Amino acid sequence: MTPNFRSDNIATVHPDILRAIAEVNQGPAAAYGDDDYSALMNRKFSAFFGTDVVVFPVSTGTAANALSLAGCARPYGGIYCHQEAHIHTAEGGATEAYTGGAKLIPLPGADYKLAPDTLAEALRHAERGVRNRPQPDAVSITQASEYGTVYGLDDIAAIGAAAREAGIVFHMDGARFANALATLGCEPGEMTWRRGVDILSFGCTKNGGMNADAIVVFDPALAEPLSYHLRRAGQTWSKMRYAAAQLMAYIEDGLLLRLAGQANGLATRLGRELAALPGVELVAPVQANLVFLRLPQDAIDKLAEAGVRFARRRGGIIRLVTRFDGSQDDVDRMVALTRAALARAPFGG
Amino acid sequence: MTPNFRSDNIATVHPDILRAIAEVNQGPAAAYGDDDYSALMNRKFSAFFGTDVVVFPVSTGTAANALSLAGCARPYGGIYCHQEAHIHTAEGGATEAYTGGAKLIPLPGADYKLAPDTLAEALRHAERGVRNRPQPDAVSITQASEYGTVYGLDDIAAIGAAAREAGIVFHMDGARFANALATLGCEPGEMTWRRGVDILSFGCTKNGGMNADAIVVFDPALAEPLSYHLRRAGQTWSKMRYAAAQLMAYIEDGLLLRLAGQANGLATRLGRELAALPGVELVAPVQANLVFLRLPQDAIDKLAEAGVRFARRRGGIIRLVTRFDGSQDDVDRMVALTRAALARAPFGG
Amino acid sequence: MTPNFRSDNIATVHPDILRAIAEVNQGPAAAYGDDDYSALMNRKFSAFFGTDVVVFPVSTGTAANALSLAGCARPYGGIYCHQEAHIHTAEGGATEAYTGGAKLIPLPGADYKLAPDTLAEALRHAERGVRNRPQPDAVSITQASEYGTVYGLDDIAAIGAAAREAGIVFHMDGARFANALATLGCEPGEMTWRRGVDILSFGCTKNGGMNADAIVVFDPALAEPLSYHLRRAGQTWSKMRYAAAQLMAYIEDGLLLRLAGQANGLATRLGRELAALPGVELVAPVQANLVFLRLPQDAIDKLAEAGVRFARRRGGIIRLVTRFDGSQDDVDRMVALTRAALARAPFGG
Amino acid sequence: MTPNFRSDNIATVHPDILRAIAEVNQGPAAAYGDDDYSALMNRKFSAFFGTDVVVFPVSTGTAANALSLAGCARPYGGIYCHQEAHIHTAEGGATEAYTGGAKLIPLPGADYKLAPDTLAEALRHAERGVRNRPQPDAVSITQASEYGTVYGLDDIAAIGAAAREAGIVFHMDGARFANALATLGCEPGEMTWRRGVDILSFGCTKNGGMNADAIVVFDPALAEPLSYHLRRAGQTWSKMRYAAAQLMAYIEDGLLLRLAGQANGLATRLGRELAALPGVELVAPVQANLVFLRLPQDAIDKLAEAGVRFARRRGGIIRLVTRFDGSQDDVDRMVALTRAALARAPFGG
Repeated sequence: MTPNFRSDNIATVHPDILRAIAEVNQGPAAAYGDDDYSALMNRKFSAFFGTDVVVFPVSTGTAANALSLAGCARPYGGIYCHQEAHIHTAEGGATEAYTGGAKLIPLPGADYKLAPDTLAEALRHAERGVRNRPQPDAVSITQASEYGTVYGLDDIAAIGAAAREAGIVFHMDGARFANALATLGCEPGEMTWRRGVDILSFGCTKNGGMNADAIVVFDPALAEPLSYHLRRAGQTWSKMRYAAAQLMAYIEDGLLLRLAGQANGLATRLGRELAALPGVELVAPVQANLVFLRLPQDAIDKLAEAGVRFARRRGGIIRLVTRFDGSQDDVDRMVALTRAALARAPFGG
Repeated sequence: MTPNFRSDNIATVHPDILRAIAEVNQGPAAAYGDDDYSALMNRKFSAFFGTDVVVFPVSTGTAANALSLAGCARPYGGIYCHQEAHIHTAEGGATEAYTGGAKLIPLPGADYKLAPDTLAEALRHAERGVRNRPQPDAVSITQASEYGTVYGLDDIAAIGAAAREAGIVFHMDGARFANALATLGCEPGEMTWRRGVDILSFGCTKNGGMNADAIVVFDPALAEPLSYHLRRAGQTWSKMRYAAAQLMAYIEDGLLLRLAGQANGLATRLGRELAALPGVELVAPVQANLVFLRLPQDAIDKLAEAGVRFARRRGGIIRLVTRFDGSQDDVDRMVALTRAALARAPFGG
Repeated sequence: MTPNFRSDNIATVHPDILRAIAEVNQGPAAAYGDDDYSALMNRKFSAFFGTDVVVFPVSTGTAANALSLAGCARPYGGIYCHQEAHIHTAEGGATEAYTGGAKLIPLPGADYKLAPDTLAEALRHAERGVRNRPQPDAVSITQASEYGTVYGLDDIAAIGAAAREAGIVFHMDGARFANALATLGCEPGEMTWRRGVDILSFGCTKNGGMNADAIVVFDPALAEPLSYHLRRAGQTWSKMRYAAAQLMAYIEDGLLLRLAGQANGLATRLGRELAALPGVELVAPVQANLVFLRLPQDAIDKLAEAGVRFARRRGGIIRLVTRFDGSQDDVDRMVALTRAALARAPFGG
Repeated sequence: MTPNFRSDNIATVHPDILRAIAEVNQGPAAAYGDDDYSALMNRKFSAFFGTDVVVFPVSTGTAANALSLAGCARPYGGIYCHQEAHIHTAEGGATEAYTGGAKLIPLPGADYKLAPDTLAEALRHAERGVRNRPQPDAVSITQASEYGTVYGLDDIAAIGAAAREAGIVFHMDGARFANALATLGCEPGEMTWRRGVDILSFGCTKNGGMNADAIVVFDPALAEPLSYHLRRAGQTWSKMRYAAAQLMAYIEDGLLLRLAGQANGLATRLGRELAALPGVELVAPVQANLVFLRLPQDAIDKLAEAGVRFARRRGGIIRLVTRFDGSQDDVDRMVALTRAALARAPFGG
């Protein structure tokens, strides 16, 4: 079978997570998160993060991001982010819609990450009190980023400090939270609230879950309004135990890290081997489970014709995504196919 | 164990549906509904309804309703419904939010149903073209209703005719679609598009599903805009196959009717036996899986003290909901407990 | 000329107000309310109300109402009002739109006024903390009401007390503020903040202004967010001095009361003389400049044929509105025409 | 008096416009634009533009822009504009709010104008049908631009052609419409609908009006939905005749061109004389009534200390705006003051 690197959301559900769903399927349970499983989930996540958190399962990462921000940004607020942030480029205006029209303020940044200095400078020029300008309300970073790069702990801390000083909320889009965590090798709390993160979109679906991501609230003041936004968004499941089961199994015994580690390992190898081919260039360092490459247009077309699945970006760039349920074989086949595509394309590009 | 009639969303997932989820858990599948399972689901639902439909799985009934209406009502539109409609009373303003401020126009109606004549008269007085009045865009009925009553086919047809004549969209909130269908004993198409329904919130979760309801679109013109509203609402699952699996299993071999039949049967017996007790009065005819009773306040308190779970309404009214996974024992125990509560409350009320 | 009682917004601008506009038309003035005239207006209104207020001129009463409420209601909030409140029936969903989907909660009430007890009871049943129900945020009353009745000071105080106890904002829609004030004969502060009103839509246009109403903020905490809502709503004029001039002239030397007194006087006479005719019935007491009458349908048609301008309501009811620039002649002619219409319609109705 | 170049909205109202307001102040007139003056205004604007138009007066340019776009962009739509467009940088998120979350897509462009090629290329890459990307709905250009540059007729035509080909609406933000028209010396229709413009924000306030700008609709299909958006936005004046009077007087006998010509002439001289000073650099060509200059920071501070009023931009740039009621004296004084500021700042910047 030709390799499929289209995305990590084409993956299966990990058997442990399926099993956890089956295990909670007994007898009645209160609805909308008032059940015992949800209470247990909150305790387990609090232990996982090393602080009291409130967890709101949601059905997609878009919902996690947009509703996190709806809970903390005013309709006339401004939300700072990297110009490649998913909330800005690939969520169909969800944040604008759920906030009632808040403004995303996209900023440039090397390696597709928002630099603390860039943020701090933007905040200095924020024109507070000027009625026709967005008023600073939040900053959002994506960890790992949309290009698979990972913010270091110092950068997160510096962004957290800038946010605190400006009095704005610090949101982390953790669609690939586990992939970043596996790379940094630190405690979950170290990568989040201890560095100033107030609210987190906690990804599970891409890395072995079925259909449950979560909003994890570190700043308790944010939880109450958020609960209303979620309900009226149609994002509060009635049978919440089946979300709680997924999320608990996901963090149980380090499952999330094992799965992320497998995906990251495949990406590392894939990036290294492909970048070693003449005519292939890494667009961003491989630090999670995403590999971005620039290669001749002709070779890209050849790979697509060969049945390889991947996403294209402008300028001869492709994105390859590895998964927890991918294989070394996929990597080997991809390297071979790319070598062949390049060979057949001596004048390509 | 004391009986729990709190709601049907406290139920488990039916084993056939869990099994269906496990069966699709193999190999990669395209995301966001571009997978083969979703295509198959669309074909199976088209066969189920006897016409080509487009199916959009969503995570809750609130999402199904509010997004169905967002896809067809303008921000300055008006949406006619019964004054007890869930969209008006119990969804936290979801429809107002997703439509950008459309106005729900609640109307009275016997047995908690919107009468065709009442709708027709309201439409005649709609003040079309008057800029500060809501412009008619949709009518929404709940089948079975919030009080467990069921619209007859003629009433649906008459509402459909009124909607057609007024040029507005006819939405059916089918949170308990199967319960109504089981009562009417007709084909799904007879209760919907053949009577003029354009778009349907198709409930599955309350009746054996896990976390997947669906919007079923009969009028193809409504599908395209809806698909965008869904995505930006964060209601388009990436791993859509696990929703498709639930929904396909639910309509396979009449599962939905078997499960609804069990719940309806329990409600029928519960209503009949409780209403036979002195001091107990049925508030609405029992035609689905909901039983509304008026009884002395003291007896209500006694039942609650005994551990029975149910919902209270103003005026000494309680709601009992039966489930596919409920039992005759529950009914028997409830009748005995109510008899006891009434006995101990000779002067109650 | 046949009399025109269509509305008070068909009126001219009072010469004093036109003159005031001309007088500020000299030299440059800072924009968006940072000019000296606006500062003076704030001082004059503070003196007028006997407390420090912040005044935001707006172009319409709809803007005044909807933005006042947008500044104090959350998207998931509930706003209590009489079921005939203009914000609910005649502003095209402006409040729902500007608040991001807050829910208006219409309540019945004799003489088209919200009774304090009705409000208090509704607040007691508000289901606070229930995620799918609107959370109490504001109450809005219309003074004078949409039917020309006037809240007494005790009723305002009782509503204010209920609002305070519930921790919600008290908004007054004063589209016909001066008409009510003239009737009560009290100080402006007595009818507002001293009775608990937090924010006021202050009408000027209907009673001699050109195109400037205002939001008057008594609770200073509401002013800051409101200023942003106004600007992004396109409701912050650049050349604000021309609004300030209108509003200052309007309250100067009691002009508002003189004009309202003229309109009220005409309405009183009109109501008294028409109600004395056989077959004519007053629908609501005449306490401001609105007269609602029930009369035979045939007579209504005859009046319309005769060229009289008025608004119709269902059930054989008509609305007549008097204006500061109306005349006793109008009243006399109307009485004569109505007498004739009734005479010609012996079997009408 | 030290010169004030802060903005053109600090200006007075032209006497002809004040006079026109006084002239319509007679007898009753129907409200909300149903009056004879409004009908006449529509005919006069149709003659002015050489085609049938529908005119909606509004109170601010922000309202004109955001509501124009709300009438033609879907909540999931995309609106292309220059990255310095007022709708993107200086209207507090009004367009996002009124459209229900549509996405502005800012593009670069020389001389602060959107180049037709840039637009065409962006439209080619629009990812139509991709559910999480904004769907092309409109393009908006500002004529004259925010930096006082003016689009040539060929550029407008090329943008119009690109819009037509893409099936999107072409909006022109004409806050300084007359200034651009005076520069181009063409008929109003030549600068708008004959080049593909579908809807126009027609500025009047900055150039002699009091508080009335207008939306001019060339594409009749856009008028009907817009009328509802306007009313619920609180942007439909009741006493519309006073807006109609302003707008009619403004286009009567070329008043708008005479006033714009005066302002433009002052700007041309100001730009030429200041740019001739050593250390002063024009940032953009002066083609309307705006002058952008880069000069040493120290000189900027000196000018401010001297009491000159102007707006600052980052990077040592200032904006000077001339007005119809400005004078040659202002220009002379400004040149003298700048020369002095530069002299006293030999090492500045």
